[in-house]
Amino acid sequence: MASEWMMHGGRLDLAKLRFPDAPQPWLDLSTGINPLRWPVPEGLATADLGPLPAPSALAALERAAAGAFATDAAVTALPGSEIGIRMLQAIGFPGPHRHVGPGYASHAAAFHDSRRIPVTDIDAAAAGGGTIIVANPSNPEGHRVDPEHLLAVARRLKRRGGWLIVDEAFADTLPEASVLPYRTAEDPVLVFRSFGKFFGLAGIRLGFAVGPEPMIERIRARLGSWPVSSLAIEVGRAAYADAGWIAATRAHLHDEAAALDNVLTAAGHTPRGACPLFRLIETEDAHGLFLRLARAGILTRPFDTAPRWLRLGLPGGAGLARLERALADG
Amino acid sequence: MASEWMMHGGRLDLAKLRFPDAPQPWLDLSTGINPLRWPVPEGLATADLGPLPAPSALAALERAAAGAFATDAAVTALPGSEIGIRMLQAIGFPGPHRHVGPGYASHAAAFHDSRRIPVTDIDAAAAGGGTIIVANPSNPEGHRVDPEHLLAVARRLKRRGGWLIVDEAFADTLPEASVLPYRTAEDPVLVFRSFGKFFGLAGIRLGFAVGPEPMIERIRARLGSWPVSSLAIEVGRAAYADAGWIAATRAHLHDEAAALDNVLTAAGHTPRGACPLFRLIETEDAHGLFLRLARAGILTRPFDTAPRWLRLGLPGGAGLARLERALADG
Repeated sequence: MASEWMMHGGRLDLAKLRFPDAPQPWLDLSTGINPLRWPVPEGLATADLGPLPAPSALAALERAAAGAFATDAAVTALPGSEIGIRMLQAIGFPGPHRHVGPGYASHAAAFHDSRRIPVTDIDAAAAGGGTIIVANPSNPEGHRVDPEHLLAVARRLKRRGGWLIVDEAFADTLPEASVLPYRTAEDPVLVFRSFGKFFGLAGIRLGFAVGPEPMIERIRARLGSWPVSSLAIEVGRAAYADAGWIAATRAHLHDEAAALDNVLTAAGHTPRGACPLFRLIETEDAHGLFLRLARAGILTRPFDTAPRWLRLGLPGGAGLARLERALADG
Repeated sequence: MASEWMMHGGRLDLAKLRFPDAPQPWLDLSTGINPLRWPVPEGLATADLGPLPAPSALAALERAAAGAFATDAAVTALPGSEIGIRMLQAIGFPGPHRHVGPGYASHAAAFHDSRRIPVTDIDAAAAGGGTIIVANPSNPEGHRVDPEHLLAVARRLKRRGGWLIVDEAFADTLPEASVLPYRTAEDPVLVFRSFGKFFGLAGIRLGFAVGPEPMIERIRARLGSWPVSSLAIEVGRAAYADAGWIAATRAHLHDEAAALDNVLTAAGHTPRGACPLFRLIETEDAHGLFLRLARAGILTRPFDTAPRWLRLGLPGGAGLARLERALADG
């Protein structure tokens, strides 16, 4: 399978080139972005882009995010969490460096000497000190680790001056998975959060680093005074404050994921994962299934490191019936 | 004078708190952002923020920017040029590190051991190799160095493996100041450009790093695949392609700067600077003038390192008459 699909999801531009005869419009299931996005009010969509964002507006966004994350930790906005993760090497975290995998390419790239470990090795790895990066829930497997377990890992790392870095990009769907409500100021835990996945607005580029104040100050120093756009500030503030939409969407996403599970199961697959924004299936001919779905205008996510895997995001609305038909047309 | 005004311009949020009795609306002359912004078409303002920006759209933005910069160098988009400048330390440029000053706080902070030099020392400094950061035109003085001179500096630095970093944040107003049309792939020159200042859309957070392909690849690796928002991509692409607006705005800004010069001169000042987006004045009681203008609802930019300086951005439209009255009410 061409490696061009393996780096990231969301390559709809490429899909249109490679499968020009696929029925339009494309159904993009190659990412874990919520298809039922937060409805941006008209007044916010036309936020004043002229002046530099006011520091007080940025601070208000960060307060709103902290509220939604149920944390009293320090929070800094990022122009997408990936830039924050790619900053880790420069900030300097103690070795040995490990990343829990399979997972994000950016986690493997965060430290040039990072070693991949399975999640089952995380306790043993923590005994050696250093730094461990883990996604919770994980991607693409959607594996969830209890926050108490991760905090125990962090406290074990701390004995040797180590750090735990938790990528909670998908934790908005599973707030009970987040370490943020439980961490203390003494825990050597740095958390990344993503705005765009849960709120369905990935194009806005907004993420957060959350942790002890001195660490967040070091990240801020590398970002400067205006890390995110006026639009990201205004939309993020309002969306994180929309507790009603957040609660309803969490419930709704679990229903949608259950419906996707039914369709996948009926087609003979065994969907895996605790995160309702995507499901992983394992099949002998993942390549063939990827191509078959692509020819039907449905883009999914294959993995070069795991040729039997295919990840599917939530179709949303009429997309589910379309997926069901495409799976049946085997 | 309170140091809170000294870090950056654009602290209108603070001005409203400190001078609650000032007439509304505030006239913000504390930045060098064009008050006559590029008119964002309705269709772009509501760019689809759902999906991640397509790599092909990002590439198209970078091609449009390269065209506007008249360069065949490699170009990467940044979420504001400041993040790029604050990345320099981590990328690793050879010492000794020098920054030409007075100038941006971010230039002084780019390398922890950077020494400030006056622009007149740049040739002598280049003989020693290492890295030099210079803004062209400079800020707040608006001093312009010929691009041929800067390229000679870069070539001198190169003999000892050094680099020249040129911050051309304000060069869109003075395209003849840019090194980009003249540099070759062999020149060790990295250039930063800013979208928001000339196009009057600073809130969108868009800048660029431009230089030899291997260096730009190193910067890209620290940014990841989605460095800027869908909105920045769509607006930037269209604005850089709008050659008519760009040419008309350059001419118009020079007229506006000449009108500002007349008002400042009539009030007994001697405006300095080659960049039409701002002027620097030097006056015994810059503090008093800053306060007097602030009480009239006009925010200007003082400097902690130069207590006799005050920088004023272009008022635009009716703002000029308001400034004229406030200066006369001495």
